Amino acid sequence: MQPDLLHRADAAHALQHFRTLSPLVHCMTNDVVQTFTANVLLALGASPAMVIDEQEAAQFSAIADALLINVGTLTADRARAMRAAIDSANTAGKPWTLDPVAVGALTFRSDFCKELLALRPAAIRGNASEILALAGMSAGGRGVDTTDHAQAALPAAQALARQTQAVVAVTGEVDYVTDGVRTLAVTGGDPLMTRVVGTGCALSAVVAASCALPGDRLTSVAAACSVMALAGSRAVAASTGPGSFIPAFLDALYALNGEDVA
Amino acid sequence: MQPDLLHRADAAHALQHFRTLSPLVHCMTNDVVQTFTANVLLALGASPAMVIDEQEAAQFSAIADALLINVGTLTADRARAMRAAIDSANTAGKPWTLDPVAVGALTFRSDFCKELLALRPAAIRGNASEILALAGMSAGGRGVDTTDHAQAALPAAQALARQTQAVVAVTGEVDYVTDGVRTLAVTGGDPLMTRVVGTGCALSAVVAASCALPGDRLTSVAAACSVMALAGSRAVAASTGPGSFIPAFLDALYALNGEDVA
Amino acid sequence: MQPDLLHRADAAHALQHFRTLSPLVHCMTNDVVQTFTANVLLALGASPAMVIDEQEAAQFSAIADALLINVGTLTADRARAMRAAIDSANTAGKPWTLDPVAVGALTFRSDFCKELLALRPAAIRGNASEILALAGMSAGGRGVDTTDHAQAALPAAQALARQTQAVVAVTGEVDYVTDGVRTLAVTGGDPLMTRVVGTGCALSAVVAASCALPGDRLTSVAAACSVMALAGSRAVAASTGPGSFIPAFLDALYALNGEDVA
Repeated sequence: MQPDLLHRADAAHALQHFRTLSPLVHCMTNDVVQTFTANVLLALGASPAMVIDEQEAAQFSAIADALLINVGTLTADRARAMRAAIDSANTAGKPWTLDPVAVGALTFRSDFCKELLALRPAAIRGNASEILALAGMSAGGRGVDTTDHAQAALPAAQALARQTQAVVAVTGEVDYVTDGVRTLAVTGGDPLMTRVVGTGCALSAVVAASCALPGDRLTSVAAACSVMALAGSRAVAASTGPGSFIPAFLDALYALNGEDVA
Repeated sequence: MQPDLLHRADAAHALQHFRTLSPLVHCMTNDVVQTFTANVLLALGASPAMVIDEQEAAQFSAIADALLINVGTLTADRARAMRAAIDSANTAGKPWTLDPVAVGALTFRSDFCKELLALRPAAIRGNASEILALAGMSAGGRGVDTTDHAQAALPAAQALARQTQAVVAVTGEVDYVTDGVRTLAVTGGDPLMTRVVGTGCALSAVVAASCALPGDRLTSVAAACSVMALAGSRAVAASTGPGSFIPAFLDALYALNGEDVA
Repeated sequence: MQPDLLHRADAAHALQHFRTLSPLVHCMTNDVVQTFTANVLLALGASPAMVIDEQEAAQFSAIADALLINVGTLTADRARAMRAAIDSANTAGKPWTLDPVAVGALTFRSDFCKELLALRPAAIRGNASEILALAGMSAGGRGVDTTDHAQAALPAAQALARQTQAVVAVTGEVDYVTDGVRTLAVTGGDPLMTRVVGTGCALSAVVAASCALPGDRLTSVAAACSVMALAGSRAVAASTGPGSFIPAFLDALYALNGEDVA
C-alpha cells in the first residue's frame, strides 16, 4: 500500500473542529513532559487535566473527552491506575490513546503495553523502534530514542492497526498514519525537535485529543501530526536553538489557524 | 458587603517585605506545575523547596516559613504526607495554604479538601468553581477550569472564610480576597494566562509565601494576587503568545519593585 | 593543596568527546527539575532517559552509559529503586553520580545519602552546605540553598573524595572539583543562575554524563562545570531576567563548541 499525502484542507478542517470542541483530555503521562504536554494542549485550545489516583482516574476518564496513556515513567501504582482509567473510558465510550515510550527495551512496560493492546485503543503513537517492538518485529530502541526510520516501521504499524483496530501513527522525519487499510503520510517538522524533550509525547496528547473529534479518525490523527509539524517548522524558523524553540513552538500552535494549515 | 479595591501602596509595601524576608516555602504541589511554581517563587525572591516523603514533609514544614498544599495530582501516599506536614506546620505555628484544584468534580480530593478545612488553613486560593464546591454551594467545574465567574463565588468565599477563619481568594477576571468580614478586589491579569498551565497554582504558592509576612494577612494575600496580575499584564504586553508569555512573566516578576506596584 | 585552574583546552576536548559519544544517561532525579535536566542533556547532545520503577531501573542502568541519583524528592519507593539501579550499574561497570540535595537538613535523605557513599559513586556534586553535611562537618543548609561558600567546603570535599574514591564537585561562585589529591577550580557562571530552579541539578546530570567519557575523570567533571558556567554567562548576557535566561541557556549549550570553550 502506497501512502497518500494528507490533504491540507482536511487538516485545516480538523484544526477548526479541535478549537471549537476544546476537548477535555485526561493525561496519564510521564513525569518529564507533564508541563509541556499541558501547555501544548492549552495552546491549541484543548483543556488538559492530569489525574493519577486509581479511583479518581477511573472517575475522571468517564467525564473527559479523551484519555492519554503514556508509559514513560511507569510504576506498578500507575499501571493499576491506568488500567482503571482505560476500563472506565471504554465503558463510557471515550477514546483512549497509547504512547508506548521505550517499549521493547524494558520488560515491565513491554508486558504492560502488550496487555493494553487488547483493550481497544483508539490510537497508538510511537517512533519507529517503539512501533516495531510493539508489533513484535524488533527488540526496540536503546532508550527513548528511535534507532529506526519511520518508513521501515510502516508494515509493523499497519499490522498493529489491523490487530488492534487502532489508528497507528509512526512518527519520524515523515509521519505515517494508518488504520491498516489506508495510510496517510505527513511531512514537515525539523530535527531540532528531537533536541527538546516531550515533542513526541505532546504529539501523542494531541492525537488523543483528536480522537474526540467527530469525523474520520484516520484524518483527525494525521491532522494532529500535521499541525504539530507545521508549528514545529515555524518555531524552528523563529528560534536560535532548542531553548528558544520551546516558547516559539507554543506561540506557533496558539497562532495557527485553518488558513495557515490549508 | 461591597469589596474595596486593594490600595497600591499596600501592595508595594507587601512586595518589599516579601523580597526582604525571602520566605522559605514548602511546596507540596501537583506534578504538572512544580518547575513553574519554583521559578515563580525564585523570581520573586522567595526560596521554594519541594519535600514529599511523609516523614521528611513533617520535618520540613516545621523548618519552612510557609506550607502550600495543592491537590492537583493527589494520591493516597501524598494525602498522608500532606496531613503530616499540616499537623507539623500547625504545631510549629507556620501558616499553610490550600489550593483545592478541581475539587467537587472528583470524590477523593473533595473528601480530602473538606477534611482539611478543619485543620485551620491560613489561606485558600481557588477559581470560582472550586470555591463554590468547597463551600458546598455547587458540584464543581468539569476539570481544572472554572465554569463560573469569580463574583458569583464571592458569597461562597465569604462563607468559607467565616467557617475556616482563613483568608479566601477566589480568582478570575477580577480576584476577590476576603476574611469573611472585609473583602478586597484586585484587577489586572489577562485571559492569556489561562492558556499557560500553572499560573493559578503558582499564585497559590505566592499566597502561601505571603502568609509568612508580618502585618495584615488579608492585605498580604491580596497583594500577592496584585503582584501576579501586574506581572501577567506586563508579560502579555511583551509576548506574542502563551509560549513567550512564560519567560516574560518570570522576567516581569523578577523586575517588579515597589515603585512599579505603587 | 592549592587548586589549579582547569585548562581551557582540556574542557574543549571533553566537550568534543561528549558530543561524539552522546552518552545515554539514566536520570533518577527529583520531580521539580526533570524537564530542565532532560533539555540540558539534549542541548549538549546527550540522550537522557528517566526510568523509575524498581525493576526497570535496575534493567536500564545496566544499558545506559551513566546513572544520576538526585534525592531532591526522595520517597521510600524511590530509595528502593535507586538502590537497585546503583547495584545494577556497579555490576555492569557503569559510573553513577550522587546529587545529595538538601542533605543534612532532613533525616531520611541524610541517612540514605550516607548509606550510598559506601556504594562507590563515580562523582558527587553539591553546594557547600551539602558537601559539608555529607562529610559530617556541618548540619547542612536551611532548605535547598547553601548557606556556605564553596571554598569553605573544599576541605570537606577533599576528605569526602578520599573516603569514597569519588570525584567531588562543590559548586558555587567558584566551583572546586577534587579527587582528594588534585583539585581544579572553575570560574564563571552568574548569581542569576540561583534564581532558576534546576541549574545545579542539571549540572549534576552533565557531571553524571561526563563520567562516561574516556580519559581523566577529574578533568571530565571539571569540564562539565566549565561548560555549564560558560553557557550560563552567555545566557545571562543574552537575557533580561531568570525567565528569558532559561531558553538562552539551552540555546547557549546547544551552540557551544570546542573553540568557544578554548
